[in-house]
Amino acid sequence: MALIVCKFGGTSVASPERIRNVAKRLVRRKQEGHQVVAVVSAMGKTTDELLGLAAAVNQNPPTREMDRLLSTGEQVSMSLLAMAIEARGYQAMSFTGRQAGIVTDNTHNKAKIVSVDSERIKDALERGYIPVVAGFQGIDENGDITTLGRGGSDTTAVAVAWGIGADVCEIYSDVDGVYSADQRICPHARKLDEISYDDMLEMAGAGSGVLQMRAVEFARKFNVVIHSRSAFSDAEGTYVKEECDMMEEAVITGIAHDTSEVKVTIRGVPDSTGVAAKVFSALAGNMVNTDMIIQNTSEDGITDISFTCPGADLERAKETLKRVVPEINAREVSIDESVAKVSLVGTGMKSTPGVAAKAFNTLGEADINIVAISTSPIRLSVVVDAAQAAEAVRVLHHAFDLDSDAVFEETQLSAEEIAAKMAKGR
Amino acid sequence: MALIVCKFGGTSVASPERIRNVAKRLVRRKQEGHQVVAVVSAMGKTTDELLGLAAAVNQNPPTREMDRLLSTGEQVSMSLLAMAIEARGYQAMSFTGRQAGIVTDNTHNKAKIVSVDSERIKDALERGYIPVVAGFQGIDENGDITTLGRGGSDTTAVAVAWGIGADVCEIYSDVDGVYSADQRICPHARKLDEISYDDMLEMAGAGSGVLQMRAVEFARKFNVVIHSRSAFSDAEGTYVKEECDMMEEAVITGIAHDTSEVKVTIRGVPDSTGVAAKVFSALAGNMVNTDMIIQNTSEDGITDISFTCPGADLERAKETLKRVVPEINAREVSIDESVAKVSLVGTGMKSTPGVAAKAFNTLGEADINIVAISTSPIRLSVVVDAAQAAEAVRVLHHAFDLDSDAVFEETQLSAEEIAAKMAKGR
Repeated sequence: MALIVCKFGGTSVASPERIRNVAKRLVRRKQEGHQVVAVVSAMGKTTDELLGLAAAVNQNPPTREMDRLLSTGEQVSMSLLAMAIEARGYQAMSFTGRQAGIVTDNTHNKAKIVSVDSERIKDALERGYIPVVAGFQGIDENGDITTLGRGGSDTTAVAVAWGIGADVCEIYSDVDGVYSADQRICPHARKLDEISYDDMLEMAGAGSGVLQMRAVEFARKFNVVIHSRSAFSDAEGTYVKEECDMMEEAVITGIAHDTSEVKVTIRGVPDSTGVAAKVFSALAGNMVNTDMIIQNTSEDGITDISFTCPGADLERAKETLKRVVPEINAREVSIDESVAKVSLVGTGMKSTPGVAAKAFNTLGEADINIVAISTSPIRLSVVVDAAQAAEAVRVLHHAFDLDSDAVFEETQLSAEEIAAKMAKGR
Repeated sequence: MALIVCKFGGTSVASPERIRNVAKRLVRRKQEGHQVVAVVSAMGKTTDELLGLAAAVNQNPPTREMDRLLSTGEQVSMSLLAMAIEARGYQAMSFTGRQAGIVTDNTHNKAKIVSVDSERIKDALERGYIPVVAGFQGIDENGDITTLGRGGSDTTAVAVAWGIGADVCEIYSDVDGVYSADQRICPHARKLDEISYDDMLEMAGAGSGVLQMRAVEFARKFNVVIHSRSAFSDAEGTYVKEECDMMEEAVITGIAHDTSEVKVTIRGVPDSTGVAAKVFSALAGNMVNTDMIIQNTSEDGITDISFTCPGADLERAKETLKRVVPEINAREVSIDESVAKVSLVGTGMKSTPGVAAKAFNTLGEADINIVAISTSPIRLSVVVDAAQAAEAVRVLHHAFDLDSDAVFEETQLSAEEIAAKMAKGR
């Protein structure tokens, strides 16, 4: 018998019928002899609808009121799920963030959890209830409702799992685990049975969207085992945990790609002290998250500086550079929106020389031009032309022996579909 | 400068546009120099939608979860209204029932207020905020969310008005005050400037739907002045308060009618001790709210017993009588759904003899048959055929000198419209 937290996202509770299915699943876990705590997101598009209502009454709504408004979404789904469980003859009790003891700082709309007191949940478990916790929300020290930011429900689930000392935190979604690459563009991708926190974080940071990075960080810090699995099947998914036995031998865990970034180049920059500092502190000051930074060697005291940043930050980047470029006497700014970042991730990389060389050779043989490179001890990222991203993932996946025997025929996309997907990702 | 509570119902906050209008109105009150607290209901049909979702996951949802679910409706409107006020450049702060200090017993779905602690609201007022309170909800001593039952937002408004010592509790709705009769069927009805708590309670109990009876009872008990007025105009409405100067001379304040009741007759009842007690305790035990009870004189030891009850209770009444009638050896049950109750209400009635005689004569002259009669010190109710109800209201209104000079031409209904309205009322 295990103590399990089960987190269900907005898609899994989008309708009364789906809520009834989630209840059925939770009850089955209970019947198997486990103690179960559910964590839920708001139903389907509820959060977007509430954001729309807020925008209709105030273009710049106060964040305190916004949190109070948004937190109602999870309160609706928690109550409905508790009712659906009771309809199956089992006792359930819903908990708001406040009642679940999720205390945060007072940064409304993206609050950080500062403490978790799960006594009330533990008490309900002991009395035989299935506790149902509203994800995404907490309270600050003044007792005001806060929200954790988009995707915060995963973090709530991990925090509750830690609070009650759960054996595992199951995160249900529409994918059945973490894959060695996106199987929509890499038909030989295979589902990982296990992945370490570090690798998962690098995969998430490099564009693999299965789990919220923040939830994984929380899990790593407090050693909570996450099980990422499908809401629509009973198959085992991927366990995210500290030590993965099978990891010792693998050099590369997976290959992530990210088409949401753009590349910005400042041309004709005088190569003098403090110029780069000026550019990047101005960008940071305007909330532009620069990712990779490349500076070419100087020619006659003049150089080019390139960086990548999320497409969503591009307008702010342009705005900043319009001001900064004249100040540093640079020539011009050029922008390339058709780029993709492809990343090799693997804890084993640290102790294995030659990964970079092999990757560059593989890409070179496939005539894929590398625009920029960045590395961490367990990640190697290259920026390539967006049109070549899928091919880059496939050839690297094959070269590093990640291919599975099974092929995802059904989910394989055509070249046009890949292009459409990449355009949409931006 | 006055301290004012302004309560807006679901219709007044049904859309972002209407919420912006409510904000405008509150800000104008503030600009006039008043201190303002708003109390809001859920937007439009929200409560019904939530009830629908609950029914879709559980036919018999647990009341604790139901309260948590329903309370989100007012939390959405309170936040949106606070945002809309801020959009006009004024500071606003929303308060859940918990934060507004509304403590109730733990009778979920129809909780009674046991205490009100308005310190946080007073504090916000002192700091220049417009507090916006979620109506309809409170918390019990365990900290669990409770709801006050349908129409509970009026009660919240009166409770908050008492808690902060407000000069007046303004209740905004789609009618502009309390009328001497329903102007849709009585074109000479006139708006009352003032009405006493007692008269208002009798009017509400007799079918006048402007204010929730419970809110008026609360106001009477704690001497809170209510101002019932239109959400769509600036005209003064009706003040409900303890002593009304103008009342001294008027015998009758108004005439209410109610078409939502049905009349049930048990025929051939043996006239022996304890029979009536058996019938009415069985009905009460099955949650049938009997209103008027009439027992004819016995003939040969056999009598008929009639009573009226809300149409909504009819199925339960039938069910009960099916069981009880054989037990008491009565002959049969007959039901008349085409009845209406017409009530004369007035504190002055107590000290004025001959009101009943005048009313019976007036109805007799108009060929309106009286099916049953009941009285209180300040009310006289008669049950008549539903088809004659509008005519009964009109002739009584005229006979007791209530007619105004102005005639509600525009709102006057045709006989067909009245019939349709009465059928709908059921």
